[in-house]
Amino acid sequence: MIMGAAKTNPGRFFEDYTVGETIHHAVPRSVGAGERALYHALYPARHALYSSDEFARSCGLKQSPLDDIAAFHVVFGKTVPDVSLNALANLGYAEGRWLKPVYAGDTIRSTSEVIGVKQNSNGKSGVVWVRTKGHNQRDEVVIDYVRWAMVRKRDLDAPAPEVVIPELKPALAAEDLVVPEGLRFDEYDFTLAGEAHRWGDYEIGETIDHVDGVTVEEAEHMMATRLWQNTAKVHFDVSSRPDGRRLIYGGHVISMARTLSFNGLANAQMVVGLNGGAHANPCFSGDTIRAWSEVLDKAETGVPGVGAIRLRLVATKGGAPFMLKGEDGKYLPDVMLDLDYWALMPM
Amino acid sequence: MIMGAAKTNPGRFFEDYTVGETIHHAVPRSVGAGERALYHALYPARHALYSSDEFARSCGLKQSPLDDIAAFHVVFGKTVPDVSLNALANLGYAEGRWLKPVYAGDTIRSTSEVIGVKQNSNGKSGVVWVRTKGHNQRDEVVIDYVRWAMVRKRDLDAPAPEVVIPELKPALAAEDLVVPEGLRFDEYDFTLAGEAHRWGDYEIGETIDHVDGVTVEEAEHMMATRLWQNTAKVHFDVSSRPDGRRLIYGGHVISMARTLSFNGLANAQMVVGLNGGAHANPCFSGDTIRAWSEVLDKAETGVPGVGAIRLRLVATKGGAPFMLKGEDGKYLPDVMLDLDYWALMPM
Amino acid sequence: MIMGAAKTNPGRFFEDYTVGETIHHAVPRSVGAGERALYHALYPARHALYSSDEFARSCGLKQSPLDDIAAFHVVFGKTVPDVSLNALANLGYAEGRWLKPVYAGDTIRSTSEVIGVKQNSNGKSGVVWVRTKGHNQRDEVVIDYVRWAMVRKRDLDAPAPEVVIPELKPALAAEDLVVPEGLRFDEYDFTLAGEAHRWGDYEIGETIDHVDGVTVEEAEHMMATRLWQNTAKVHFDVSSRPDGRRLIYGGHVISMARTLSFNGLANAQMVVGLNGGAHANPCFSGDTIRAWSEVLDKAETGVPGVGAIRLRLVATKGGAPFMLKGEDGKYLPDVMLDLDYWALMPM
Repeated sequence: MIMGAAKTNPGRFFEDYTVGETIHHAVPRSVGAGERALYHALYPARHALYSSDEFARSCGLKQSPLDDIAAFHVVFGKTVPDVSLNALANLGYAEGRWLKPVYAGDTIRSTSEVIGVKQNSNGKSGVVWVRTKGHNQRDEVVIDYVRWAMVRKRDLDAPAPEVVIPELKPALAAEDLVVPEGLRFDEYDFTLAGEAHRWGDYEIGETIDHVDGVTVEEAEHMMATRLWQNTAKVHFDVSSRPDGRRLIYGGHVISMARTLSFNGLANAQMVVGLNGGAHANPCFSGDTIRAWSEVLDKAETGVPGVGAIRLRLVATKGGAPFMLKGEDGKYLPDVMLDLDYWALMPM
Repeated sequence: MIMGAAKTNPGRFFEDYTVGETIHHAVPRSVGAGERALYHALYPARHALYSSDEFARSCGLKQSPLDDIAAFHVVFGKTVPDVSLNALANLGYAEGRWLKPVYAGDTIRSTSEVIGVKQNSNGKSGVVWVRTKGHNQRDEVVIDYVRWAMVRKRDLDAPAPEVVIPELKPALAAEDLVVPEGLRFDEYDFTLAGEAHRWGDYEIGETIDHVDGVTVEEAEHMMATRLWQNTAKVHFDVSSRPDGRRLIYGGHVISMARTLSFNGLANAQMVVGLNGGAHANPCFSGDTIRAWSEVLDKAETGVPGVGAIRLRLVATKGGAPFMLKGEDGKYLPDVMLDLDYWALMPM
Repeated sequence: MIMGAAKTNPGRFFEDYTVGETIHHAVPRSVGAGERALYHALYPARHALYSSDEFARSCGLKQSPLDDIAAFHVVFGKTVPDVSLNALANLGYAEGRWLKPVYAGDTIRSTSEVIGVKQNSNGKSGVVWVRTKGHNQRDEVVIDYVRWAMVRKRDLDAPAPEVVIPELKPALAAEDLVVPEGLRFDEYDFTLAGEAHRWGDYEIGETIDHVDGVTVEEAEHMMATRLWQNTAKVHFDVSSRPDGRRLIYGGHVISMARTLSFNGLANAQMVVGLNGGAHANPCFSGDTIRAWSEVLDKAETGVPGVGAIRLRLVATKGGAPFMLKGEDGKYLPDVMLDLDYWALMPM
């Protein structure tokens, strides 16, 4: 018997990353009507621009794009076999921008440039920063974001690389945001969209409890995570963690929270910027996800009638809304997600 | 911290309904190949006209429409945030008609006219009747039905409105039914359809046990219910009921029973009329749904070769087939659904 | 009350099969973007030719076909109401060939020719061999395979038919395989495909542990099995087996194992031949499926650059990889599937 173990992908270890290198991630993916329907089956998605082709056309787009968070999942999923297989923790996101809507029929692939490395003092692992881009079949960049993760070393004796820590913006400025070509809200139908509140109705500092909750199931999060071709085994294999539980992909919590936020933010239609995000505590099957938002900032976009709103989106599995951190500055145990993003809204 | 609770939708209460008013429900929805596939994944759907575009074309349609019950769910789902959020019970349906098939690419929105109100003697709630219409992107009405529900009052001191109780037909007559334009069964292939029984082979009073059973799961009913953008929290959130169980959307039971009825009614292809329906007892995850039917009536449609058959469709979670009510006239505890509908069949 | 039990399909019994007869199976099915997305949601499917329309075009096809195993499930599912309802066991497959890719918009129907019968010595059942063909809307055969099953007799006194045992090839030869028209791998992008190993890199006798595992859920296998319109009640109804467990459709295990085999066989793109297969032990919800492969043979196809590789694909629910049978020659209890197939690979 000839063992072919060498043919399987062991993933990259810390010492396999070189600053400046570009990783071309495998398995491009065509998306379409199926992904759209599944997104509506897996999440309580109701933002009208993604639900109705007619509504999208009334906003100047050719049809409903794939939900922006779904597009992010597709781009992210491709990076997992290269970046995450030996990751100990996903530490953060920054400078995420949605540059082009993804439409049915588009084929998405991802690349990541290594932009920072820093070995940990324990010598067993290190932090790797990558700038990931999603590209469509016309080689246009559709999404661009920075992510950093703690990655194990394979060989503890491998020398520590020169420390490179990228300078990252704590938040994108309004001028960094890209409004999709043609987008306009001058014929926006607030009745069909579901709420009357426009950009001018939100105040910085305002908080919104999105009220509804969804109890999550194993079959759902696995279907969602597979749909984005995210192969991290902790999501699928009960034997991969000592507690025998499947860890739910953090992106599942993001999608659930974002879609729940419809109730109070129905007009925060398009996600265009990701300033940062923390997966504060794990999510497991049986947890009931709730969400609340806080308005962090507001800005004009330069496109008449299209405002930008910066939101903190928090997903919890219990506890009172609007509670985030304890006196020790740490996230409360019921907080699963703290996301900071920009969305576009009719002014 | 500024609380934005006022931005979320509290739903309508009994005193918010005025007879004659039309409610424009939010979030239009485009449907397509994804909804079709999901319907086949969530239910044992086999009626050939909906499974095969070629079969649909041989029946004079341009392709397979979205399953009629799925189209109903889409129209119904849009009404939930306005009509059902504070409903204590969904009491009945009447005069439901399918007027146009829904095809891939169509965008559906819903409106409801308030046609009746009657405050309950306890002063805490009342019954509201609405006539709901589903419209496609050409503003054609695709579905039209009456539904009534018991709705809570927000303000117990609000005065009781003048009682208006609409006159509703106990059942649609054959001349009320609309046969889709172009439908013909003269080249109908009974072998491909799965059964040889035609309209003439069914007798009024005949009962059919559909034999098969399906044990239902939380992930399935939640995916189905979300797919139709039905947001009623009892279906999703274990904390919304004292018993900690998620109530399964009654429409999930309708779809399961209707698709199970293929076995014995494979040629009852298109659903065109809904005479009435009762969700007799709740359905929960783990229940095994079975179905039986009774032929209530038969009629000619005026279209050569196309017969109409009026069927009682009963879904149970145990017990013997053909048992419906006890000696007290109440539904037996194992009966979950008693639906009365018209379907079209080759003569 | 008039009982309509005669209207439901009781399935065929052993004495209902006559050698030479062709059964036209019911319910043709159109497939499309929804089935494709669901296949990616239900299985960790990553073979690039099925994931990316652009990749498929670079290989000479017009777009990504439906996954070959999914196409097989569609063809197989149609045969279940006729062949499997009264089957006691699915005994084997042989001479399976994929003759045409199935594309979005195609409509598939199935026929089966009875090619063998042999009553068992107990007089209560017999073995039936059928050659099943899947046809598209242009009446082209897309899949062709032989399957045999043990089927109950309805009438134990029915006379035993003349024994006919078809001669079946233990394995297809390379010249039996059909390379899809236009397929070419001369511009094959190994980076996008996910692995660098080409046909020449695999040795006969080589074994590959595919490493990853997936714990399966009731909702998933039922959705998958329904999607292929496979109605065998043991998959859906907890009351259909004495142990109250739902038996998972063997095809679900095949799809899970085949998609897991991406890790090590990412370039075994198209499945073109099925030499044989055994569902060695049942699979239930909660089992964690793993897979390993063995290279059984290699051959040239006559198409420049396109090699054929014959693989044994084994799915397990525990135990060490590469263990198949005990000293008694029987499958080990953890082995669920032993499949023997041909795939096409860039040379």
